[in-house]
Parts: sequence; C-alpha cells; structure tokens
Amino acid sequence: MIKVEGYSGKARATTITTEHGEIKTPIFMPVGTRASVKCMWQEDLYEMNAQIILGNTYHLYLRPGHELIEKVGGGLHGFMNWDKPILTDSGGFQVFSLSDINKITEEGVTFSSHIDGSKHLISPEKSMEIQKGLGSDIVMAFDECPKLPATKDTLRESMELTLRWAKRCIDYKLRDYQKLFGIVQGGLHKDLRTECMQRLEEMDFPGLALGGLSVGEKNEEMVDFLNDFVHTMPDQKPRYLMGVGKPLDILNGIRAGIDMFDCVLPTRNARNGQFLTHDGPLNIKNLRFREDTLPADPSCDCKVCKTYSRSYIRHLYTTGEFLAGNLITYHNLYFMIKMTQDARQAILDDRFDDYYKEFYNRYTSRKWAAGQ
Amino acid sequence: MIKVEGYSGKARATTITTEHGEIKTPIFMPVGTRASVKCMWQEDLYEMNAQIILGNTYHLYLRPGHELIEKVGGGLHGFMNWDKPILTDSGGFQVFSLSDINKITEEGVTFSSHIDGSKHLISPEKSMEIQKGLGSDIVMAFDECPKLPATKDTLRESMELTLRWAKRCIDYKLRDYQKLFGIVQGGLHKDLRTECMQRLEEMDFPGLALGGLSVGEKNEEMVDFLNDFVHTMPDQKPRYLMGVGKPLDILNGIRAGIDMFDCVLPTRNARNGQFLTHDGPLNIKNLRFREDTLPADPSCDCKVCKTYSRSYIRHLYTTGEFLAGNLITYHNLYFMIKMTQDARQAILDDRFDDYYKEFYNRYTSRKWAAGQ
Repeated sequence: MIKVEGYSGKARATTITTEHGEIKTPIFMPVGTRASVKCMWQEDLYEMNAQIILGNTYHLYLRPGHELIEKVGGGLHGFMNWDKPILTDSGGFQVFSLSDINKITEEGVTFSSHIDGSKHLISPEKSMEIQKGLGSDIVMAFDECPKLPATKDTLRESMELTLRWAKRCIDYKLRDYQKLFGIVQGGLHKDLRTECMQRLEEMDFPGLALGGLSVGEKNEEMVDFLNDFVHTMPDQKPRYLMGVGKPLDILNGIRAGIDMFDCVLPTRNARNGQFLTHDGPLNIKNLRFREDTLPADPSCDCKVCKTYSRSYIRHLYTTGEFLAGNLITYHNLYFMIKMTQDARQAILDDRFDDYYKEFYNRYTSRKWAAGQ
Repeated sequence: MIKVEGYSGKARATTITTEHGEIKTPIFMPVGTRASVKCMWQEDLYEMNAQIILGNTYHLYLRPGHELIEKVGGGLHGFMNWDKPILTDSGGFQVFSLSDINKITEEGVTFSSHIDGSKHLISPEKSMEIQKGLGSDIVMAFDECPKLPATKDTLRESMELTLRWAKRCIDYKLRDYQKLFGIVQGGLHKDLRTECMQRLEEMDFPGLALGGLSVGEKNEEMVDFLNDFVHTMPDQKPRYLMGVGKPLDILNGIRAGIDMFDCVLPTRNARNGQFLTHDGPLNIKNLRFREDTLPADPSCDCKVCKTYSRSYIRHLYTTGEFLAGNLITYHNLYFMIKMTQDARQAILDDRFDDYYKEFYNRYTSRKWAAGQ
C-alpha cells in the first residue's frame, strides 16, 4: 500500500494508496472526532487539501453508534459525505483517558460512558466490529495505553497484553479494503519498542504506529527516541506517530522518518484563540492586536489570512462570535497541511535539512511579538 | 435611490441603488449584529446572494466601538470585509430591549450596558455619529420604541418624541453617500401612523421604515394593518418593515407592498435546531429524523440540502458539534433569500397571488411531519 518516493536524510516522502484515494506523505490528518472536524464544512477540508481525516471510535460508538452510521451511510464516508480516506483509532486511548474504567481484563476494558455513565465493554473484537461498521480505510489495533510514569516491568506487561490483543485484531475479518495498523508500545525503552515491533512484524500488519508518546515525557526525550528508532522501522510500511502534535514536534517526527500525524491541537487551540503562524503561536486575545490590520500570519495564503485582519478576528473572538472559531480553525489546519506539503517538497528536492532549520528558526523567533 | 419595476397587486419589485451596489427587492437582510452574521463566513453570504446585511449600532458602539471600526477599516465594510450594502439600525430598539434604562429625556436615552453596566447616553446625534463612523449605506433615525400594550395617548407622546428626534437626525451631517430612513411609529392606529408618515415626509427622508410591529399584537392585526397602510406610503421611496419576521409574515409584508425585511429568526432558530423548509419549520432534534437520509428540505438546492442528510445533521446537533449551527444557518438564510427572489420573479411576471397561495398552502401543510 505504500510507495517510497525519496529520502532526505531520514525524512521521507511516500504515496500511500487506499480504497478512497492516495495520500501523499508526510501528512497531517485533521481530527474529526464525532464525524465532524470541529467548525469545518467538509468542503473546507477539500479546499485546504486535507487528504485524510481521523474519526474517533470511542465517540462514534457512543453517539450515534456504528450501527446507525452503517445503516444510514454505509459507513462514515457516506454518513458524513467525505469521499477521501479516513483513519479511525481503536477507541483505546479514549477509553483510558475519558471514561471511568471499571476493569481491564484479558477480554478487554469495561468502562462507564463519559456521557451517561452507561456500562460498556470494548474488546479487541468489539473495536474491530465498530471500525468495520465505520468502514474506515485505515483501522487501528486495540491497545492498552499504560499510565506514565511506569516501571519497565509495568510497560512490559502492558506491551504483552497489547501484543495478545493485536493478534486478536488481526484475526478479525474486516472489510476487504480496510488496512489494519499495529501499534508499537514500550515507552522510551528502545529494547521494548524493538521487541514489540518485531513481534508485530511477525503478524505482518500493513502499517505500524507509534503509541504512547507525547504523554508526559520531556520533549527532547521523545525527539531523541524518534531519531534513534523510526529509521529501524520497516521501509515498506506506513509509519504513523499517534496524537503528535505541535508544529515543531511534527517537523521533528518528519526528520526522524515518520509519514503520518494527527493531533487536536490546531482545532482545539483555535477555539482558545491561538493562531499557528510561521513566526510562532499567536494569541488573538492579546490587546496588542486590537488595532492591528495585518492578517494573522502575513506569510500565509489561506483565505482567512488573505481576507481578515487581526483586529477583526480579535473582535469576533472577544465578543464570542462563532465565526472566530471557524476562521482560526481553518487557518490552523491549512497551516499544518501546508507545512507537511512544504516538507514533502523539500524531501523530494533533498533539501529537508535546510527547510527544517529555516522553519524552526523562524517559528521560535516569535517575530510577530515585536510588531511588524 | 429607487426604481419601481413592477407591481402585482400591491406587491412590488424595485431596484434600490446604494454606494455599495444595487439591491433587488423584495429582499431579506441577514442580521450581522456584531459585524458578523452568526456562524457565516462573508463568502457564504456572497454565495447565497445576500444583497445587503444589517449591523446593530448598539452592539457595535459597545464593542469594539465605532471609532475602532472607522480607524481600522474606514467603517464596517472594510472592518469586516463586506463590500455590498450595509444597513445599520439606530440602536434605539436594543437600548430599549437589552439595557437597563436609567432615563429617557428630550436629549436622549441614558442606559447601562448589558455587558459591564457602564453608563452611556445615546441621543439622536450620538446615534448618527456612530452610524457615520460605521459608514453604512442606509442609516436609521433614532426613535423611541414604546412598550406595548400602550394607550393611544402614550403612543402619541412617543410618536411626537420620535418626530422631534427624527428632525435632529436629519439635521446631522452624515457621509455624503449615506441615506437616512425615517421610522413611522403609531402602533396599530392608522390615523397616528398616517400623521407620523406625513410629518416625516415633510422632512423628506429618502426612505421610510415601519417600526413597532410584531411586538406583541396579534398576527392578523399586523397583517390587516399592513394591507391597509403600506400602499399609502410614497411610491418612490423604499419601504422597510423592521424586525419582521417569520417566512409567512414576510410573504404577507410583500403582498402589502413592503420592499425590505430583516429578522434574527433564521439565524437564531438555526442554533436551536430549526430548519425552515417549504413544508414548514422542522426541528432536527426530533427522534423521527434519526435514520432519515433525506435532506432537511428536499425542495431546496442549497449546498447543505444537496450534501447532508437529516440523520447526519441531527447527530451533529445532538452532540453539540459546531458544524450543526453552520449548516442550519446557511440553509435558513438561503431559504429566506430564495423565497424573496422567487417572490420578486412572481411580481415581475404578475403572478404574485398564485405564488403566495402556493407557498402559503405548502408551508402550512407540514408535510414533512407525515414522512416522505
């Protein structure tokens, strides 16, 4: 399902082929938790060239339910009218982070819904059943996400459970076109990660993801681990770094050889008034922008930056106008997608290191703060 | 500023010319209270052929302030990037309905802001100063809005004050291109309304509005009054029915000879889950729509109805997704604008009465409720 088109250092550009079209990597995937990328029309996402979006199995299972989505739309694509690729997570991370967990057993996880307290069991088979109903192009294996910090023994136990669950996932019959990705766990221990990866490789998943990163460790630790580990992953399989992250984290991931990223940061922070810009994050609430006629990011060519001033958007945000969330979300997603597109071009031109340094230096300069 | 293009009964089609372009009437004006039509991008409004939008003087005066809007954008058009016509109200209605009023005197109204309790005075001159700063194409005179029910004596006193204030408004020097509309008050008393209109005519306002309707009287009373009164208004001036209303109210207004309408109903009710459809209002929260694959209004050709199902939008609404408000608002405004466009064509074809009956009968049938 993947064609590697070029390397620049460890960074790489690939084309991943799915039932609903090709994905040119590296790529950022907007998160559409409940069958909607918050504040965005699907046509906004097409327009900004989002190539693939993510849906959350836990949320969609609880509301409206995968049976309804399958009945009404034949799956998520039809239900939400999105005809490009979709990746769904396994529900594991949300079960562990959002719900009240009653019990983790060999069978699966019994939990109480964060919405109404109702009790549910998600097992590897249940996660596959839900994702089959959703009809996503890329399906994630159901894994345990251990709480950090954890001892190496705890991480090993968790990894062993994740591997037993991975086997049950790969034994489940999905739709023919669905690709199941295995999840490599093991904290920051390279030996655990390597063992986990090798044992997943024995099951021959069509793609591999790294879980359990950006969950409390120091940023340098994550970057060092990625630089040390990602290039040892199989060349002919997609590599997905789950839930990461900030623009510079993604750039570091690309440098280490990651293909796919997702994160709620650009959408969630948008609703808190944060613009991502080439000169670093900018909080539109700041009084300094009250009379500022510049666009949020003067180097951006999105329709928000081509049209609206910081002053206007600050007014919208401070008065609680819905349009503020729409505009900032659009820009932030455009920014992330454009960043990965530019990184891809730099890789194909074998000048990724220059791109990295230029982006990094400017992003950390916070020049907008000095007034322009 | 107006060219009357045709009558069909009392209903009429006109072209009103302003500094920022022509308005083909009858027309519905989306309300953009705080320099934003809630949930809509300005490009959405262009796309649905909104010909003119409304801004609220009271809200914009308090936040961000007309001085800021003038300084940053040269007025509201530049500030919000909207280059078609804008009408601003006088602030009067909001002062009376939203703020704590401390005192109404000959000078004006002293009130406390609904936001922070700060004290302000809006006089006729202040209202003109604010609207001059906003640079709207159509400016409304500052009037008193008496609380209903009121005795005829009270209404007369209020009308006399409104007329004295109207004189102070017309004596104020606005921008050259701005057109000031006078407001006819007088409750449901035709003699008061006629007197008020004649005395406004002596001041020669370029347009006239009807205020104080749809504020508690019975719907038939309003309709009867409009049928009785509107055709007596000057032929060569725009006629604007303020703050009205529901689709059938607007249709009745058109039948009586009104040119311009505004109302928050299509935008506000959208955020409460109400679709306006040819078969009557439809509340998307209703459980009956859970598995309904039809568009909200099968007779509508807007991009919402062409793309999304009732089932999907119900899911968005019930889970609190922002996209629900965006979609329903877009459809509702499209519906209102299309309704006035169709009415205009029917007038030009001199078949308005047929159009009226067909629309009215279908709208009141609530056929969607029977399942389709």
